[in-house]
Amino acid sequence: MGHFGKTRISVDELYHGIINHDRLMLSKAITLIESRRKDDISRGAELLDKIIGHSGKSLRLGITGVPGVGKSSFIESLGSSLTQEGHRLAILSIDPTSSKSGGSILGDKTRMEELSHDPNAYIRPSPAGQTLGGVNNRTRETILLCEAAGFDIVIVETVGVGQSETAVKDMVDCFLLLMLSGGGDELQGIKRGIMEMADIIAINKSDGDNVAPSKRTKKILENAVHLFPPHEINWVVPVSLCSALSKEGITDIWKDIESFIAMSHSEDFFKHNRQIQNAQWYRQLVDEKIKHAYFNEEKSAKYREIETKIIANELGVRNGLRKLFES
Amino acid sequence: MGHFGKTRISVDELYHGIINHDRLMLSKAITLIESRRKDDISRGAELLDKIIGHSGKSLRLGITGVPGVGKSSFIESLGSSLTQEGHRLAILSIDPTSSKSGGSILGDKTRMEELSHDPNAYIRPSPAGQTLGGVNNRTRETILLCEAAGFDIVIVETVGVGQSETAVKDMVDCFLLLMLSGGGDELQGIKRGIMEMADIIAINKSDGDNVAPSKRTKKILENAVHLFPPHEINWVVPVSLCSALSKEGITDIWKDIESFIAMSHSEDFFKHNRQIQNAQWYRQLVDEKIKHAYFNEEKSAKYREIETKIIANELGVRNGLRKLFES
Repeated sequence: MGHFGKTRISVDELYHGIINHDRLMLSKAITLIESRRKDDISRGAELLDKIIGHSGKSLRLGITGVPGVGKSSFIESLGSSLTQEGHRLAILSIDPTSSKSGGSILGDKTRMEELSHDPNAYIRPSPAGQTLGGVNNRTRETILLCEAAGFDIVIVETVGVGQSETAVKDMVDCFLLLMLSGGGDELQGIKRGIMEMADIIAINKSDGDNVAPSKRTKKILENAVHLFPPHEINWVVPVSLCSALSKEGITDIWKDIESFIAMSHSEDFFKHNRQIQNAQWYRQLVDEKIKHAYFNEEKSAKYREIETKIIANELGVRNGLRKLFES
Repeated sequence: MGHFGKTRISVDELYHGIINHDRLMLSKAITLIESRRKDDISRGAELLDKIIGHSGKSLRLGITGVPGVGKSSFIESLGSSLTQEGHRLAILSIDPTSSKSGGSILGDKTRMEELSHDPNAYIRPSPAGQTLGGVNNRTRETILLCEAAGFDIVIVETVGVGQSETAVKDMVDCFLLLMLSGGGDELQGIKRGIMEMADIIAINKSDGDNVAPSKRTKKILENAVHLFPPHEINWVVPVSLCSALSKEGITDIWKDIESFIAMSHSEDFFKHNRQIQNAQWYRQLVDEKIKHAYFNEEKSAKYREIETKIIANELGVRNGLRKLFES
């Protein structure tokens, strides 16, 4: 081993570390992938090429829900039962705030007390870097690295209040929406459209006085789901009740997930969906590469400055475009 | 006038024609805007700069719904009552098929028999050009031209089975979803998430034996709407019944639209929304411009070829990326 601290770890060491399930090496590899330094980018690419054959074998699960819905305790409860069954679980939290603050609530591992000490669980925030107007992070690459490191379930968690949840939908095999009874105003800030995209809906905090309203919400959603545009496969989105607090309903939701994945495989959708997602990933990478070739830092700043002026109604779109490209 | 046929009409003539409500000049201007010929592009840009001060004053209404929902007869019925009230109405149909076939059902004006002979209505298909993986057409520019030509209501119609309906949502002030009783499988092919994005939901063909099931669907959707992520403004999405056949309910839906627009103005959302849409338009134009600078025809073909191979699982994403940029 060696080469810690300021000395660079070689790509080869990272590779061997990862496929030997070395968590420290995995963490260092993810940091490498997230780096924007020129030589890190080429080393990261080299590493990805090496591990790609070891990736792809996990179940990729997306979980979204507004702050306060109890995502962390849900994942803690679900995750603990999964690791007890012998699964190895990676949890990636896409955090819209971490790119600004350099740290945040989501990065705080103590949110998941039990899992953070579980040798079969790996928790890692995935900063949602905003570049040139789009969500642009390394979560897809991080999933591949976790898979190569032997994690057979990868959970991608988002707070669901920005653009990240559509991005997550596009990188997972199953997309779970956590809700609360009542809905509506409690969903303030969540992207409209997300409910229809869910493969599974779970109403959390269905305990105590909340059981009756949760049941009402479940009933309404079950009716509504039949009016939603139909799923790509022969699947009616289940609406389940659970309580991360009392741990009730959690294993049933896992059964829902397993049923969905089984159906997805049996209709050949699972593989097809991943291929479509790969094409999307390819398009994003091409976009990114072209933009990076075109925009230096100065130009990026100008791009954003013009965007701000357009939003403030101080500049027209066509004049803005001209201003950007005149130099 | 003059300069028809093979002789070019000057930008100045087009400009004066448009602001003097000359429909032929408007049509020629739209054709110019849609052209991909290099000198047409610069003339189109010049024209847009000239008319921009005359644009922006219409109510922009998006209407979506799957084929068979009765969009044409709904628009015919709504549109005729609007022109009778003295409105001037432009109808732009975004047609996912017209770019391939060079003509299609949507371009067929006889779908709207009455409106196509109405001097206060203007119907025009807007081809949904697919370039480099994204929806990419000139509908936004066409809206501006129609506004400059004195149309105070612009309807943008999509069949709602592709990517175009999200694009339309992003260019209108009010987004109306036409549905049928039953929903679910009848919505086959519609983009999931579109229901939650609607400002107004109307259940069409609520006549005869269909009245009772339509009322049931209305009830379910009204309940569901309260569970949807809330609207940006203090607005509960109304679910209304109508019949384009019997012409019942159509004027009530127009009242819904007017209420929504009034609320949108009173909360300062109307203007804000257009500014956000402008920023989005700017981002799209920048993307497009950069891609066109980067991709020649050969490169575009290669881009698509690699994309196809990735979808067919014949090529990995990273190798595909490498292949594209190696040359």
